[in-house]
Amino acid sequence: MRPSQRKPDQLRPVRITRGFTRHAEGSVLVEFGETRVLCTASVEETVPGFLRGKGQGWLTAEYGMLPRATHTRSAREAAKGKQSGRTQEIQRLIGRSLRAVVDLTALGERQITIDCDVLQADGGTRTAAITGACVAVRDALDKLVADGKLAASPMTDFVAAVSVGIYKGTPVLDLDYDEDSDCDTDMNVVMTGAGGLIEVQGTAEGAAFSRTELNALLDLAEAGIGRLTELQQAALRG
Amino acid sequence: MRPSQRKPDQLRPVRITRGFTRHAEGSVLVEFGETRVLCTASVEETVPGFLRGKGQGWLTAEYGMLPRATHTRSAREAAKGKQSGRTQEIQRLIGRSLRAVVDLTALGERQITIDCDVLQADGGTRTAAITGACVAVRDALDKLVADGKLAASPMTDFVAAVSVGIYKGTPVLDLDYDEDSDCDTDMNVVMTGAGGLIEVQGTAEGAAFSRTELNALLDLAEAGIGRLTELQQAALRG
Amino acid sequence: MRPSQRKPDQLRPVRITRGFTRHAEGSVLVEFGETRVLCTASVEETVPGFLRGKGQGWLTAEYGMLPRATHTRSAREAAKGKQSGRTQEIQRLIGRSLRAVVDLTALGERQITIDCDVLQADGGTRTAAITGACVAVRDALDKLVADGKLAASPMTDFVAAVSVGIYKGTPVLDLDYDEDSDCDTDMNVVMTGAGGLIEVQGTAEGAAFSRTELNALLDLAEAGIGRLTELQQAALRG
Amino acid sequence: MRPSQRKPDQLRPVRITRGFTRHAEGSVLVEFGETRVLCTASVEETVPGFLRGKGQGWLTAEYGMLPRATHTRSAREAAKGKQSGRTQEIQRLIGRSLRAVVDLTALGERQITIDCDVLQADGGTRTAAITGACVAVRDALDKLVADGKLAASPMTDFVAAVSVGIYKGTPVLDLDYDEDSDCDTDMNVVMTGAGGLIEVQGTAEGAAFSRTELNALLDLAEAGIGRLTELQQAALRG
Amino acid sequence: MRPSQRKPDQLRPVRITRGFTRHAEGSVLVEFGETRVLCTASVEETVPGFLRGKGQGWLTAEYGMLPRATHTRSAREAAKGKQSGRTQEIQRLIGRSLRAVVDLTALGERQITIDCDVLQADGGTRTAAITGACVAVRDALDKLVADGKLAASPMTDFVAAVSVGIYKGTPVLDLDYDEDSDCDTDMNVVMTGAGGLIEVQGTAEGAAFSRTELNALLDLAEAGIGRLTELQQAALRG
Amino acid sequence: MRPSQRKPDQLRPVRITRGFTRHAEGSVLVEFGETRVLCTASVEETVPGFLRGKGQGWLTAEYGMLPRATHTRSAREAAKGKQSGRTQEIQRLIGRSLRAVVDLTALGERQITIDCDVLQADGGTRTAAITGACVAVRDALDKLVADGKLAASPMTDFVAAVSVGIYKGTPVLDLDYDEDSDCDTDMNVVMTGAGGLIEVQGTAEGAAFSRTELNALLDLAEAGIGRLTELQQAALRG
Repeated sequence: MRPSQRKPDQLRPVRITRGFTRHAEGSVLVEFGETRVLCTASVEETVPGFLRGKGQGWLTAEYGMLPRATHTRSAREAAKGKQSGRTQEIQRLIGRSLRAVVDLTALGERQITIDCDVLQADGGTRTAAITGACVAVRDALDKLVADGKLAASPMTDFVAAVSVGIYKGTPVLDLDYDEDSDCDTDMNVVMTGAGGLIEVQGTAEGAAFSRTELNALLDLAEAGIGRLTELQQAALRG
Repeated sequence: MRPSQRKPDQLRPVRITRGFTRHAEGSVLVEFGETRVLCTASVEETVPGFLRGKGQGWLTAEYGMLPRATHTRSAREAAKGKQSGRTQEIQRLIGRSLRAVVDLTALGERQITIDCDVLQADGGTRTAAITGACVAVRDALDKLVADGKLAASPMTDFVAAVSVGIYKGTPVLDLDYDEDSDCDTDMNVVMTGAGGLIEVQGTAEGAAFSRTELNALLDLAEAGIGRLTELQQAALRG
Repeated sequence: MRPSQRKPDQLRPVRITRGFTRHAEGSVLVEFGETRVLCTASVEETVPGFLRGKGQGWLTAEYGMLPRATHTRSAREAAKGKQSGRTQEIQRLIGRSLRAVVDLTALGERQITIDCDVLQADGGTRTAAITGACVAVRDALDKLVADGKLAASPMTDFVAAVSVGIYKGTPVLDLDYDEDSDCDTDMNVVMTGAGGLIEVQGTAEGAAFSRTELNALLDLAEAGIGRLTELQQAALRG
Repeated sequence: MRPSQRKPDQLRPVRITRGFTRHAEGSVLVEFGETRVLCTASVEETVPGFLRGKGQGWLTAEYGMLPRATHTRSAREAAKGKQSGRTQEIQRLIGRSLRAVVDLTALGERQITIDCDVLQADGGTRTAAITGACVAVRDALDKLVADGKLAASPMTDFVAAVSVGIYKGTPVLDLDYDEDSDCDTDMNVVMTGAGGLIEVQGTAEGAAFSRTELNALLDLAEAGIGRLTELQQAALRG
Repeated sequence: MRPSQRKPDQLRPVRITRGFTRHAEGSVLVEFGETRVLCTASVEETVPGFLRGKGQGWLTAEYGMLPRATHTRSAREAAKGKQSGRTQEIQRLIGRSLRAVVDLTALGERQITIDCDVLQADGGTRTAAITGACVAVRDALDKLVADGKLAASPMTDFVAAVSVGIYKGTPVLDLDYDEDSDCDTDMNVVMTGAGGLIEVQGTAEGAAFSRTELNALLDLAEAGIGRLTELQQAALRG
Repeated sequence: MRPSQRKPDQLRPVRITRGFTRHAEGSVLVEFGETRVLCTASVEETVPGFLRGKGQGWLTAEYGMLPRATHTRSAREAAKGKQSGRTQEIQRLIGRSLRAVVDLTALGERQITIDCDVLQADGGTRTAAITGACVAVRDALDKLVADGKLAASPMTDFVAAVSVGIYKGTPVLDLDYDEDSDCDTDMNVVMTGAGGLIEVQGTAEGAAFSRTELNALLDLAEAGIGRLTELQQAALRG
């Protein structure tokens, strides 16, 4: 039995609130249960040095966690003077995931910067971040189209992510903090709206896992991401 | 005429939402118009090295701004690897202001850390932060009392802050971004609920200012802080 | 056809040289074709602060690349003053992979630090590093047993790793630099000697990948890691 | 009674020595009693990036304290690898104060950098720094005129600063270290030669202060700055 | 008697292996007994900013020590975020030594970067590094000639280095770690193939040393460097 | 002919002013012509971690240059966030030189920190710093004796330093900036009052130098340091 009483294949309540802040071209508050991440997409009419004059754009992501987003306060990375390995790993993952569904050549010489800041953490912040960032980027690109700067959105598909894991022997979907702290295998899966895999990152926390377990986890993730994509589409219609 | 159509002595709509996030002992979202700051107060049962064994507690503050809280994206301080002079100045001010109304000896050997993170900026983030942090710290200290760790709250008074400035020749209260960018003199005032001054920081942005102008600004600030203290009290009752 | 003329399921020539340097308790030069990584395991009779007095040991890993291990010189991280996100990601992966096969409680209050330094890079440095580090850690732990500090080695299994990817439409094993720069999907797989999965990290570089492709890649990896484990055992006998 | 036997409205002996070092375009040793600060003004024929091509100049300030300027040695900021919040606050204040009396457009595309380094500290280092820097900047600008690079000095007025505070219940002028460590309210005031206010920074160290006390302190500061301006003028004539 | 049984004027066995790694234009493994340093010379068709457009090239050096090159593991400089004073001192010495025998104007607007990375340390790493770097730079410059980018090598002479010291009262050549840890005076000498002095760095570790002792040490160094130059020439022929 | 009209073996006018600042246990302004360095010696009743409980003291040195001590302004190291290789090299040299004449065991478990800050630079700042620091350390140690904390000063001798070089073919003593910028060989020599060598650091700036030239330089240095030791003694008597 899951601590949250959810069924093994049940997502937490997911909410996607667009326009959460006013300055960013795309601004989404995404909630996976008690996990809340503010995802903004900012457009700049410039590209980093290594791409200048190459006729294409760039998309990158940064990730942060407010010091008291967590159960006990963690040190502020700006005060420590560096980002942890975990932070860098997550922001690289978010960037790669979104680049998989944006045609950078069609974007032209401009840069989209995604900022994912965790206001409250209860497990699954990186998967919520990817799911929310997809909607924020969509909004930012649609604004470029609305402003006449692009003829069509360079976004080629949706992208969403979810965590899965083996909790007390059972494969379960969308781990919250209590499950995450106490599970054997933990996997983050990123997929497109069309059902293609973008990232699969599975880690044995204690015992190694088998191909059979891997497949059960991927089945759960696939179904969960399907529902997340529907929620993204609903949010964009709403 | 003010860009926002407000009267010279009129505050922006102020909202103080307690319990905005769930993990912190005190968690307040404070809004001064479009400026929104999340203020959390975290209690730790330890003190910094320089106070160990001295029989008193400590209160400190950190301040941050989400990269896209502003009109154009500003670089993430954690990524740059250091906090700007402005950030340090503000977090020192918040810490001093709150220490003025907390009896650190009565607090005992524990530390309160205030985190003020700006979700959206439209001028006056530091004064909103102080005003919100006061309520967050009250909640955190009341929790220590409720948990039986302290017999009475070590908070001795309220503290609130507001900005004032001379905009197009007229002294006005609670500057928003449009006014702030275009005013001659800018002053931040911090006062206790009892009406005592804690901090006065006035800066001539262009022309120098006179004692008469200084007095007019202080009159405005005094009245404004009086209203903010009422709003703090109402929020704590609510 | 692979640039190296290898068959899709063919590893590069692998060499594992023990005792490559003299000071470290375990010191292994591992070569996957032209990729050469020096892996040392150092034993210290202390544990990091967060584990002190907990009756268990720790194992951690650091990774570096000599500036001219690569085709063009890359900046020295010590001179830049920070490790890249890629470096941190890799050293976290190496640490997790080795911890999966070491019983930290049986290790006692001591720390094993693995250093993987790439002398020459031609793709697959992280998988070579894990494969070599396993042998270096074995040697270091056997030395503790030989020195009478431990009754038995706390190592519970072998661990090895290999990369797989889809190169020009075909799933192939053990990518070299030419393939790595030009493949659609790239996956690193870490497995125990007993065939359990420790880490699966698959990334779509261009197009998304399907469950069928994922399975083909895992089949290749499983076979490749089996052969690597045999080579590790041979090296330890040799 | 003040520890130094001074009357409440009495400055410490002030000395302003021009040409203290030889390389800088302006170089002034300023002494407020035992507080000694070396202020240099350096002219560079360039502006920072954000001003390039805008047809105006820039003036900025840096502040430092020699490690043993103080009663006990404090760590060298260059060795710690960062400037403290206090240092940054002070150097921002010095820069703003001097920019208030320099016409940056008349300066043309060049930069004045002020360096204020405290050789010996006994309270009031930032106010001494501003007072000395004014003379150093005057000298540097006069040199630009003498060299034919400017037709007239872009300096529009004098600027000087002094601290005031409430020491054992009495408002006093120009606090030394003994008073500063033991006073209730501490205020730094910066004014032009014409008597306009540039900065007012008052802080309650213990109890809050009243409008009446604030006014008494400003009266003291106004008189003190008047005398400092005379001393600056005398030094420039001398 | 020396711990290694060597005669006072006897070098350790020296080996110079060219082409040790494949990507660098010059790549040499130099061994002075158990001290092993990998020296690479990288050519870049650019110069640092301060030399742009000046019609000359540049040569610079970086030095590092693998964490477990030493008896006990030392912290990784990239992880600590800065290079030690010792590291910087050594890399500045290597750079100066090599610049003494390269005609930077004849090199043209390109930069040679030498990387000296110590794989195993047993005393004398900096002198081995200079000796090996000379061969690596020769190879890199010869490659520029072979590729038709230069008409003749801009190298004007050989350069080699050795340490000497007073060990238990006797001047000895080429100190190993055991001697280095226990000697009174330690000196590093760098000379050209023609016998000119480039650097002399002598340090009293305990008692001061006399002019007579200095001369005895220089005699030893001169003879030793003569033999090292022959070994460099042999390696280049080989 | 030297730019300063000095004879080859002539020092610049040297002045040693004790008690230049008031807080440090030893405080000396040393002037070698236009080079002016403030040297303070601070006593702390503690030792660094690696010496705790070993029954001996420590002496260390730090060096800095005010940004406008030089002809053109150089960046402040505290603002850049790190000390240059040159700074570290110099402060290591100063520390080693002074440790050579202080009996650290007789000092007991306390630390002397020397701070050498260059107020004005005209060549030879490191040799002036060593010469001045010797007097500051003497004063600080004598104060420990006067305060009854030590029975006798742990200083075993004087130490002084001077630069020598080959300027336009002639060996000269005590190079100023003009000579230093334009000389072929540059050497810093540190000696005890008894005439023993502590450090010899000679560098060929252009052409290599011979043993004969080295000897001529050492002769000059020996005579110069003899005179500096007399000046140190006179200052201590004065």
